[in-house]
Amino acid sequence: MGKLPGAVAIREVGPRDGFQNEPEIISTERKIELIDMLARTGLRRIEATSFVRADVIPQLSDATAVLAGIDVPAEVAIGVLIPNERGLQNALELRDGLVQSRPAFDEVNVFMSASETHNRKNVNRSISESLAGLEVVLGRARAAGVRCEAVISTSFGCPYEGRVPSERVLGIAARLRDFGAQEIGFGDTTGMANPVQVSAFFEQALERLDGVELTAHFHNTRGQGLANVLAALQAGVTSFESSFGELGGCPVPPGATGNIASEDLVSMLHEMGIHTGIDLEALLACARRVQDVLGRPLGSHTLVAGPVDWRR
Amino acid sequence: MGKLPGAVAIREVGPRDGFQNEPEIISTERKIELIDMLARTGLRRIEATSFVRADVIPQLSDATAVLAGIDVPAEVAIGVLIPNERGLQNALELRDGLVQSRPAFDEVNVFMSASETHNRKNVNRSISESLAGLEVVLGRARAAGVRCEAVISTSFGCPYEGRVPSERVLGIAARLRDFGAQEIGFGDTTGMANPVQVSAFFEQALERLDGVELTAHFHNTRGQGLANVLAALQAGVTSFESSFGELGGCPVPPGATGNIASEDLVSMLHEMGIHTGIDLEALLACARRVQDVLGRPLGSHTLVAGPVDWRR
Repeated sequence: MGKLPGAVAIREVGPRDGFQNEPEIISTERKIELIDMLARTGLRRIEATSFVRADVIPQLSDATAVLAGIDVPAEVAIGVLIPNERGLQNALELRDGLVQSRPAFDEVNVFMSASETHNRKNVNRSISESLAGLEVVLGRARAAGVRCEAVISTSFGCPYEGRVPSERVLGIAARLRDFGAQEIGFGDTTGMANPVQVSAFFEQALERLDGVELTAHFHNTRGQGLANVLAALQAGVTSFESSFGELGGCPVPPGATGNIASEDLVSMLHEMGIHTGIDLEALLACARRVQDVLGRPLGSHTLVAGPVDWRR
Repeated sequence: MGKLPGAVAIREVGPRDGFQNEPEIISTERKIELIDMLARTGLRRIEATSFVRADVIPQLSDATAVLAGIDVPAEVAIGVLIPNERGLQNALELRDGLVQSRPAFDEVNVFMSASETHNRKNVNRSISESLAGLEVVLGRARAAGVRCEAVISTSFGCPYEGRVPSERVLGIAARLRDFGAQEIGFGDTTGMANPVQVSAFFEQALERLDGVELTAHFHNTRGQGLANVLAALQAGVTSFESSFGELGGCPVPPGATGNIASEDLVSMLHEMGIHTGIDLEALLACARRVQDVLGRPLGSHTLVAGPVDWRR
């Protein structure tokens, strides 16, 4: 098995990545309720919403109301997705304007793809245009005192281009770090990664990318999500992103699963003796609640089966 | 990542373990069609049916007709599950009586649990009574020239007793080997295993159990099935059992997933560069066909998402 970390950090992306993929609008009240629940499970970082244009993603057009309405413990960092320079400006204006006991958010998440075609289809920019934009966004966000994560989509393969050279991914990651990103997330956007690839990639990344936290974001598209987590753990990764209820994460084709479920991730880690600081039962309560809110069975396995019962 | 095997063997258990758990009777004709399809995917071993009492499992009461009707290539070994001495007698009588171009079956699979409570609830015997019965069954089957696998259920945990000491599991395995089993399958019957446990268990098993093939049978109850496969591969296991379409495998509570899907297993192994001899597209065609026959969406991930497309 080799050496495994004693503890890992999990960033919950369901309220943004998950809700964004829901066809029916979820009320602001329910979103606030669910984020407040998640913030009391022991999770320390939650991606709460996005500053995308309301006409592009109507589901997240209530970003301001969500951020104004949530009430989360001081130790929980709230993240927001920033699509571009304008999105950042709106987010920072809100942050300055909202008078709360704490800032409206603590972190911004920016993103781009490692493949030209996917980046073009996703944000209608070339890779170099995205890098130029992110240099501005990351610089401004850091200047405003906000923590910055940059996620690189299609880090392990692209549905349009196939193989994505790890050299290119690592090169983009180094640029984003130099622009001010304190954390780089590597996304297996359409679930193409396998454990051998993940192991080799993160061994290289951890060796070459100094001074920045490296995070793995896996999908369970072909059932291999937690196997990739295991490979990443063995390579030394201690930071993961996942989604409660197995919500979201580019479910293409329809019915395909996207993100790994936070409950399944936490269940496996705890069973392996790896600390997360998360109360699995409390997290399962969140997944049950979002399942009720959405009114359909979700893909999370532990949500159905319950935690392992060792009869202790 | 460590050293991984270059090739693994997969035994398909869907036509027995999967069909057994289906509430609606599948016609003999459809069973034969599906086994014949599976036998042309490159799979070399298929568990086709069981010689349980018809009143106990009506779904498999057509064992004789299924074995008489299938037409599989010579290189494919057909296995049948044998519950007890009487079941073996019926199976051997059929094998002697059926005049076909090949024997009605090539292998028998026997089973018992490593936990007293699970064994009692499953076969109404104590562990020592099961061992005594299997000594007879394995001896007679070997004398008849049939290959023998023994599966030990609850090898990684019991829903009634919790922890199952690996010493006990390995002790039972050694006895079954001494009785004539040429292969021992270790079943994670209710999906309690985690990769750390799997790694430690198989390292010990491979060191201590000489002269017998060791096989891993994992469930995906909490989404961790393929992570356990990865841990077993790293420990040196080269033989796995799985079920096409993710059928079967003790789906408790209702809706919970059981066996890992053969397609998901083959997809991950091939992506990792590990040879299986199986044509994934042909296997997916079997999964699609059984999904059509059963008339409900199945849990297999690769069945929904399709194989990884590297645009090669």
